[in-house]
Amino acid sequence: MLDKNVRDTSVSESTVTTGPIEGSHKHYVDIDGLTVPVRRVELTNGDHFDLYDTSGPYTDSTATIDLDAGLPKLRDQWTKPDPVDGAATQLAWARAGIITAEMRYIAAREGLPVELVRDEVAAGRAVIPANHRHPEAEPMIIGKRFLVKVNANIGNSAVTSSIAEEVEKMVWASRWGADTIMDLSTGKNIHETREWIMRNSPVPIGTVPIYQALEKVNGDPTALTWEIYRDTVIEQCEQGVDYMTVHAGVLLRYVPLTAKRVTGIVSRGGSIMAAWCLAHHRESFLYTHFEEICQILRRYDVTFSLGDGLRPGSIADANDAAQFAELRTLGELTKIAKSYGVQVMIEGPGHVPMHKIVENVRLEEELCEEAPFYTLGPLATDIAPAYDHITSAIGAAIIAQAGTAMLCYVTPKEHLGLPNRDDVKVGVITYKIAAHAADLAKQHPHAQERDDELSKARFEFRWHDQFALSLDPDTARSYHDETLPAEPAKSAHFCSMCGPKFCSMRISADVREYAERNGLTDVDAIEAGMAAKSEEFVEAGSKVYLPVV
Amino acid sequence: MLDKNVRDTSVSESTVTTGPIEGSHKHYVDIDGLTVPVRRVELTNGDHFDLYDTSGPYTDSTATIDLDAGLPKLRDQWTKPDPVDGAATQLAWARAGIITAEMRYIAAREGLPVELVRDEVAAGRAVIPANHRHPEAEPMIIGKRFLVKVNANIGNSAVTSSIAEEVEKMVWASRWGADTIMDLSTGKNIHETREWIMRNSPVPIGTVPIYQALEKVNGDPTALTWEIYRDTVIEQCEQGVDYMTVHAGVLLRYVPLTAKRVTGIVSRGGSIMAAWCLAHHRESFLYTHFEEICQILRRYDVTFSLGDGLRPGSIADANDAAQFAELRTLGELTKIAKSYGVQVMIEGPGHVPMHKIVENVRLEEELCEEAPFYTLGPLATDIAPAYDHITSAIGAAIIAQAGTAMLCYVTPKEHLGLPNRDDVKVGVITYKIAAHAADLAKQHPHAQERDDELSKARFEFRWHDQFALSLDPDTARSYHDETLPAEPAKSAHFCSMCGPKFCSMRISADVREYAERNGLTDVDAIEAGMAAKSEEFVEAGSKVYLPVV
Repeated sequence: MLDKNVRDTSVSESTVTTGPIEGSHKHYVDIDGLTVPVRRVELTNGDHFDLYDTSGPYTDSTATIDLDAGLPKLRDQWTKPDPVDGAATQLAWARAGIITAEMRYIAAREGLPVELVRDEVAAGRAVIPANHRHPEAEPMIIGKRFLVKVNANIGNSAVTSSIAEEVEKMVWASRWGADTIMDLSTGKNIHETREWIMRNSPVPIGTVPIYQALEKVNGDPTALTWEIYRDTVIEQCEQGVDYMTVHAGVLLRYVPLTAKRVTGIVSRGGSIMAAWCLAHHRESFLYTHFEEICQILRRYDVTFSLGDGLRPGSIADANDAAQFAELRTLGELTKIAKSYGVQVMIEGPGHVPMHKIVENVRLEEELCEEAPFYTLGPLATDIAPAYDHITSAIGAAIIAQAGTAMLCYVTPKEHLGLPNRDDVKVGVITYKIAAHAADLAKQHPHAQERDDELSKARFEFRWHDQFALSLDPDTARSYHDETLPAEPAKSAHFCSMCGPKFCSMRISADVREYAERNGLTDVDAIEAGMAAKSEEFVEAGSKVYLPVV
Repeated sequence: MLDKNVRDTSVSESTVTTGPIEGSHKHYVDIDGLTVPVRRVELTNGDHFDLYDTSGPYTDSTATIDLDAGLPKLRDQWTKPDPVDGAATQLAWARAGIITAEMRYIAAREGLPVELVRDEVAAGRAVIPANHRHPEAEPMIIGKRFLVKVNANIGNSAVTSSIAEEVEKMVWASRWGADTIMDLSTGKNIHETREWIMRNSPVPIGTVPIYQALEKVNGDPTALTWEIYRDTVIEQCEQGVDYMTVHAGVLLRYVPLTAKRVTGIVSRGGSIMAAWCLAHHRESFLYTHFEEICQILRRYDVTFSLGDGLRPGSIADANDAAQFAELRTLGELTKIAKSYGVQVMIEGPGHVPMHKIVENVRLEEELCEEAPFYTLGPLATDIAPAYDHITSAIGAAIIAQAGTAMLCYVTPKEHLGLPNRDDVKVGVITYKIAAHAADLAKQHPHAQERDDELSKARFEFRWHDQFALSLDPDTARSYHDETLPAEPAKSAHFCSMCGPKFCSMRISADVREYAERNGLTDVDAIEAGMAAKSEEFVEAGSKVYLPVV
C-alpha cells in the first residue's frame, strides 16, 4: 500500500497501459515452486513461442491493476536466508554457496543453470538488484554471461512532467522490454514520484541520490554535506530503491583533467561533485565516506552503480586521462564495496568512436574485477542530434558484444529535450535491438531461436506470426497496412515490395520444394540428376509464379 | 533535354524539393579550373564550416530547376582522354597514369591528394561510377580509403508509385546525403521513369537490368534470353546508367545449396536466375556471356556491381556455403572485368550477426582483389521489422569500419512495404550515421572535424549552430522546440533536460573558466595551488549557477 502521506489522488485516478501486447498473452510457468511469467506468442501453425517478459502484471488480462494499492508483494512470500557476516545480500549468499529464490527465478527466466547464476554473482561478475524493501519487483540479473539488459531513464525535471506521466512511462517502458528503470527526477515531489513508481514497478528501480540531496539544499552544490547525502540515501533505501548511482570516483585532483576537454564534464552528478570539490578544496564526501555508504547499502541489499562522472561527452574526449583516472578509482571502490558484501556494477560512457569502444570494456574488466559494466550507449558520433538513439545503438551493440552487461537507453530527444511516451518506446525498442544483436554475437544459448522463428514465419508468409514475434508488433503491422491494408494481404504469398508476380521469397520456396521433391539438396545430387529433372520442372509449369489468390 | 518520346507532362509539372538545407547554403569552390560544390554552414561565432554536398543544384537558391530540360551537363565541358587499349574508362586511364577531371573533382570533394584517387582506382580498390552518357552527375568515388558512401534505393513496383514520386525521391534522397541512387523499378514505364531520373540526377545511378528484362518477357523468368538481356543492358548504358548489378555469380550448381536454408534465396535477381537455371538446366547466361557484358560496359565506362544473388536473408543463413560459393565466383569475374578495363565493385549481405561480419570483408578482399565492397546493411538481427534501418545500421557501421566502401540503405519499411518520402529520409540519415561512424573509426583525415565543431557548439550552447551542423537540422530543431519552443531558448545556457538551475554543461564551463583563470590545467597545478584558489572560488560566489536570462 502506498504511503498515505505521499498519495496524490490525481495519480490514483490516472490510468496506465494494460493488456497484452498484440499476438501474445501472459503465461506463467511453474518452476520449482516459483511462478515465472513469460510472454507467450501463439503461432498460426499451432506452435507457441515464449519470450522473456519484463512487463509485470500490466500485460496480464486477468490481473486487477490498482495503482493506489501497488503491485502484489511477490518476494515477501519467499524465504530469505540469514545474513552472512552481517550482509543480507545476494553476493554474500552466493559466496556462501546459498541458492536464493531470486537466483532460481532468474535461472528460469534466462533458461540457464541456477549454479551459473550463483557462481557469477559470487564472483561479482553479475548482480541481482533487489532491495529487500522492493518486494514487488520480479528478480533479474545483470552480468555478461546472461541476456544483455536494457535500462530506461524516466523522471520529471524542473521544466516539465507530472507524477502520473512518470508512472505511465515506467509501465510503458517495461511493457516494451526495459529490464530496469532509473528515476532521475530533479524537480518537485521527488520522494512522492518515486513512491508511486516503486510500489507499481515490476522491474528494479535505480536512482541517483545526489539529485534529491541537491534539491534539499535548493540546488546549490556547495551547500551539500555528507549528512544530507547520507540521510537521502537512507530515505531511498527505505523506499526500496534497488540500485544507486554514486559518483564517488570524481576526485578533486581529476577535475583539472577536464579543463581542456571539448565538452568538459557532462554528467550531472559529476559536475555537482566537481563543483563541490573545487569550492571546498576537499576530497569528495562520496569518496571519504564510501565505507559508510557500503554499510547502509548492505542492510537493504542495494546495489552500487558506481557512476562515471567524468565520462566523455564528445568523440574528442573519449578514452582520455580524466575518464580513465576515474575508472581506476572505481576499481578501488569496487573492492571495498565487495568486502562489505555489497553488489557493484560500473557505469561507462558516453561518446566513443567505434575503434575506441572495446578498450573501455577491457580496462573496466581489468580494473574492476569484471564487475558488470553498465554503459550509456556509447554514441559512435556526435553529428546526429534527433537520431542519438541510433548513433548510440551502434556503440551499444558493439560494447555489449565486448561484454557490457546492461545498456542505458538513449531516446531520439537526447541532447534536445525530455522524452515523451513515443520517445521512450523508440528508445527501448532500439536498445532491445542492440542488446539482442549482442546476445546473438555472444552466442547466448537461446538468443537465435527468436530470429529463426521469425525468419521462418517470414519465409512462409505467416505475416501475423512475423508481427507477433517482432519487438514491436503494432508498428510492424501498421507499416504493412500502409501499402496493403486488407486482411487477405496478411496471408498473401507476396508483399508490396515486389508485388504478386515478382516475389523472390515465392520463387525461392518453389526452388526449395522442387529441389526437395527431387532429392537435389547438395551439389553432387544436382550435378548427377539435374538434366532430367529440369525438363520435369518446365513440364510442371515452372511453378515459380503460382497464381496468388 | 529529355527524350521527347518518354516525356510525361505530369512529371514536368510536378515539383521537387528545392532550396538550401536550414542553416547552410550552396557554395562553390574553384579548384584547378573545376567548380566543386560544398554545403557551407555559417556559424553564429563568425566561422563557417563546409560539408561534403551530394544535393546538386536543387539546394542552390540561385539555380533554375527545369525537370523537363534536365540538369546542366557538367561533365560535357570536360576533356576526355583517349581510350587506352580500347577502354575509355577511369580504370584504364588510372592504370596509364592519367589523372582525369573526374579524379581532380573527387580529390577536391574528399580533401585528399589526387594521386591517391588515381592510385586506388588503378589498383581496382576504388571505382568512379560515371557513364559517359550521364554528364549531369557530379563525380564521386567508392573505395575504402575514401569517405564511406551511401546508396538509396528508389523505384516503383507493380503495386504502387508514380514517376513524379520517384523523381522527387531521388532529389530528396540526394538532398539528405545519398551518394548514389539505385532505380529498382519493376512495374510499368521502367524506361520512362529512368529517363526522368537520369536527366535530373546529380549523383550516379545504378540499376539491375534483369528487372527490366523480366518485364519484357511478361514476368516469366524461364522466358528470359541472353539477347533480351543484352539489349536491355545496351538500352540502359545508352541512357547513362552509371553502374549495374549483374548477378552473374548465381551458378546452377549453387542453387541446391540454398534448399535447406531458413530463408532460401531472398535476392530478386538471384531468384530469377536460379529459376532460369533450374528450368533450363543450363548455366546462367550472365555467367556464360560475361565477357560480352564487359565489352558493352567498357564502351560507356559503366561500373559492374557484381550482385550477391545468394546473400543470406536471415541470421541462420549468414556466411553459409551458398553465399561464399557465389563470392568465390564473383572473384573470378572481377579479374575478367578488370582485364577489359571495366570497373568493378562487389555486393554483400544481407543478414549477418555481428560476430560474423568481419569475415565477410576479409573474404571479399581476399577473393576479389579488394574491389570495393558494397553491402546491404547487414541486419544484425531478424527480430525487429519496422526498425530494420536500425538493425542494419549496426551491421553497416561495423562492416564499413572493416572496409566496406558503400552501404546500401535500409528503410523502416524493409520487409513490410515500399518506403515513402519520410522513410527515404530516415533511411538516408540513418546510413549517414553508420557511414560517418565508420569514417571516424577508420580515422579518415577530416571526419572528426564535424563532430568537434558540433560538440563545441553544443558545449557553448550555440543551439542554432548545433542544428545547422547536424545531419538533420529540421528534426533536431523541431525536437528542441517541443519542450522549449521560444526563440530565447535557442540561446539559453541550459536545456530542457535539467532546467536552468541544474545544468552540467553550465557547471562544467564554469569549472573550466575557473581552472583556466588560475592556471589549474593539470594535476600538478591543482595539487600545488588549489588550497588557496578554492577560497577564491567561494568568494567569487561559486559561480556554478549563474542566473540565466
